[in-house]
Amino acid sequence: MLDATAELLHRQGYAATGLNQIIADSGAPKGSLYFHFPGGKEELVSRAIERASEPLTELLERVLAAAPTPEDAIDGVVAYFGGQLATSAYAKGCPVATVALEQAATSNPLHTVCSSTYARWQQLVAARLATAGFAPARAAELASFALSAIEGALMLCRAHRSLDPLARTAAELRRHLQHERPTP
Amino acid sequence: MLDATAELLHRQGYAATGLNQIIADSGAPKGSLYFHFPGGKEELVSRAIERASEPLTELLERVLAAAPTPEDAIDGVVAYFGGQLATSAYAKGCPVATVALEQAATSNPLHTVCSSTYARWQQLVAARLATAGFAPARAAELASFALSAIEGALMLCRAHRSLDPLARTAAELRRHLQHERPTP
Repeated sequence: MLDATAELLHRQGYAATGLNQIIADSGAPKGSLYFHFPGGKEELVSRAIERASEPLTELLERVLAAAPTPEDAIDGVVAYFGGQLATSAYAKGCPVATVALEQAATSNPLHTVCSSTYARWQQLVAARLATAGFAPARAAELASFALSAIEGALMLCRAHRSLDPLARTAAELRRHLQHERPTP
Repeated sequence: MLDATAELLHRQGYAATGLNQIIADSGAPKGSLYFHFPGGKEELVSRAIERASEPLTELLERVLAAAPTPEDAIDGVVAYFGGQLATSAYAKGCPVATVALEQAATSNPLHTVCSSTYARWQQLVAARLATAGFAPARAAELASFALSAIEGALMLCRAHRSLDPLARTAAELRRHLQHERPTP
């Protein structure tokens, strides 16, 4: 049920994803929803977003650890999202963003899960920048910027049905990190 | 009816915005919807997004024309969105983004209106960068990057209920433009 919910949220967002569609897509018995998720749709969606963010967290950890420099890690992230956008006909970008835009201002549980997911990704990037020699405060600033730029590019790729915004953002982020690189 | 639709889309997106709510909020007679918008919700939303994007296009034109440098124009954009996010309790960021994420992959009319709105904003920024001395191709690249970064920051401000992502993105974009500034 969590996987079916995550897939629907990723493609169409919170409001369009009805409980009946979740039950139909998951094949779970109807009564099991409120048994497992007494908080209803909001609780189910919170858990589904947590689950949907896990592959991305694992990818980030793997790519950041393997890349010789933080700039090189950008390529791994772009390859992941580029593949996902292309194979889904631009239906799947960031698994959190649509729900964040629809619900974070009004739903406290969904605000909490979206915000903490983004904070986790930002911390991973900041830690890798610190390892590369950036002062911790500067690493946090650059990680925040990189996350904004990539999230915006993913949205614009979907709006334009094109991978160009993501490729351009990756190239500029690489240049920016090189400009800002601390002198050893 | 267009204004009521634009306000609802801005706060909650496409799927959550029902025709009954639009009619209630606008005070328009029910029969007038399909008279004025024979294409139904999709046509009404397309027109509402065009209208909602106009104040932002005008702001961009004004700010870009008045700013002594392209970097200075960033402050005007940030002040506009910062005020809007704060006074709406983070319900209102970019008036196009939520619908773009929800609908651009599946609805051709909505993809067209979202894509052309973003293309227009990007062209305005690119033209200002070209006036500041960037080669046209480079100006277009930097404009694409700036749009991605600001759109992502607006989304993250809503997710975190904080203005920090926008302030950080503005500061980094300013630094990036200064690094990339063509030598006279």
